[in-house]
Amino acid sequence: MKGAVRGHMVAWDLFSFVGVMAYAASGAVVAIEEQYDMFGVCVLGFVTSFGGGILRNVVVGIPLKSFWSQTSMFLAAFGTLVAILLLPTRWLLHGKRWIVVFDAIGLSAFAIQGALYAKQMHYPLIAVVMAAVLTGIGGGLIRDVLAGRKPFVLREEIYAVWAMLAGLVIGLGWVDGRHPVRLYVLFAAIFALRLLSVWRNWHIPRK
Amino acid sequence: MKGAVRGHMVAWDLFSFVGVMAYAASGAVVAIEEQYDMFGVCVLGFVTSFGGGILRNVVVGIPLKSFWSQTSMFLAAFGTLVAILLLPTRWLLHGKRWIVVFDAIGLSAFAIQGALYAKQMHYPLIAVVMAAVLTGIGGGLIRDVLAGRKPFVLREEIYAVWAMLAGLVIGLGWVDGRHPVRLYVLFAAIFALRLLSVWRNWHIPRK
Amino acid sequence: MKGAVRGHMVAWDLFSFVGVMAYAASGAVVAIEEQYDMFGVCVLGFVTSFGGGILRNVVVGIPLKSFWSQTSMFLAAFGTLVAILLLPTRWLLHGKRWIVVFDAIGLSAFAIQGALYAKQMHYPLIAVVMAAVLTGIGGGLIRDVLAGRKPFVLREEIYAVWAMLAGLVIGLGWVDGRHPVRLYVLFAAIFALRLLSVWRNWHIPRK
Repeated sequence: MKGAVRGHMVAWDLFSFVGVMAYAASGAVVAIEEQYDMFGVCVLGFVTSFGGGILRNVVVGIPLKSFWSQTSMFLAAFGTLVAILLLPTRWLLHGKRWIVVFDAIGLSAFAIQGALYAKQMHYPLIAVVMAAVLTGIGGGLIRDVLAGRKPFVLREEIYAVWAMLAGLVIGLGWVDGRHPVRLYVLFAAIFALRLLSVWRNWHIPRK
Repeated sequence: MKGAVRGHMVAWDLFSFVGVMAYAASGAVVAIEEQYDMFGVCVLGFVTSFGGGILRNVVVGIPLKSFWSQTSMFLAAFGTLVAILLLPTRWLLHGKRWIVVFDAIGLSAFAIQGALYAKQMHYPLIAVVMAAVLTGIGGGLIRDVLAGRKPFVLREEIYAVWAMLAGLVIGLGWVDGRHPVRLYVLFAAIFALRLLSVWRNWHIPRK
Repeated sequence: MKGAVRGHMVAWDLFSFVGVMAYAASGAVVAIEEQYDMFGVCVLGFVTSFGGGILRNVVVGIPLKSFWSQTSMFLAAFGTLVAILLLPTRWLLHGKRWIVVFDAIGLSAFAIQGALYAKQMHYPLIAVVMAAVLTGIGGGLIRDVLAGRKPFVLREEIYAVWAMLAGLVIGLGWVDGRHPVRLYVLFAAIFALRLLSVWRNWHIPRK
């Protein structure tokens, strides 16, 4: 394996790890807010981290067996959850502003990976977009349903639209796995757009 | 292809189009009622139109890949949603009574198609009935869960039972794809029974 | 077939029947409490009995076709639901304390069978644990979501943890299908631990 290729893989693995940990943290925070017990915290954490990928595979029709061999990702989520359960709540509140940044890394990385996945399997455009959106927001959707909340992606802030954009760009073939630089540009753009939406308080209009 | 066969396919495609558009409209209306943003309107619209078919394939175990090639259906749903977002709300309220009729066309067409699908794959009776019910009501079920509502099919009106009836009739082999006339009769019967339930205000008793 | 093997199969089938009936009853009771109609009672009953197995197959990636041939299980659930709809409510309230015992039989049997299933297919430990948990609690999870409730397994009592324990023991290879005695011991242990949790009012701490 060439050094450059390995370097790229390390970079994307890193984005995924950050995303998995941020998503697990967001699930845990919701569970704590809903006064769920420690098991509920772990379930919502795992569901938020991995629910999107599972939902994508199920809905788009990709076999799930290989999904279960990403042991290091499961450990990253588990470590995050243990840390959250052990650390003082005060620290958690302090860290909440950082979750937005990490979560944006996850959104961008997951949407891109989901779209690449479907594209490699020669799915039509709509399925590629759907794979991007489901990988990016599916976990949060299930988290909110299991917490008895109305899914926040359906009513607040601009979040899923950026995942959709990543899916479109990859589905149309403008960016693919053979051009790592373009992938990084796309990653940075989605990440920046998501952060901008939060900082400038952008909203999608209602009817 | 014989003209007659083509004519039948056109008829069933037409029923499906009407159903997809009616289901998308019902999802959009629920999202607007819940004050979801425009993205939420699109998600609930698509989920109501296509969630039943996806759920059927997943639960009954039919591969999903071909599901993603029905481009014209996706465009029909998308066009409906754009129209709903652009048209004045006043018109929407006016059109609401028509949705019941179009929705009944969708219920009947989807239940029959779902049942035929499972029957062709030689599934046992219970799976054929399940395929009919899931295709007919699955989208509305997910719509209500994502809207934070108790699913209306579980507590109001006679709706799912007609899908179940279509599944039974096809599962028992009384009607199949080789007898188009019987299919039309079944379609008309399910459609009429659903409309009758609304107009006569029929309800399933509670315990 | 040897008599001993047949005897074991009869025993496990019996546990499954008891579990399916107890789960169906718990779904029906929730639906009646939520004032759902008789169709809603049947849906929640079936979902609680079979939703866990379906969710396990979908999430872990096991084909669903054979799932639909367990006719006797469907009949057991259906019979339970008919009985609940016909019997006087007074009897139901009387029987509610017994549901806990039958439910514990179901939890133990389903968790063990789910784990054995994934283990036989050579899935990694995390997937075996997940299969045990999903088979044991998945039905109740969907039941609560469809009833518009926060899932009780995420916030009350020690329930899912015992399914997880069964998954761990089988996933680590300490107990498998070749040692029926060990399987019975595991079954009795999970059953006893669940009942103990109820009777001693054990709870998982919150953060």
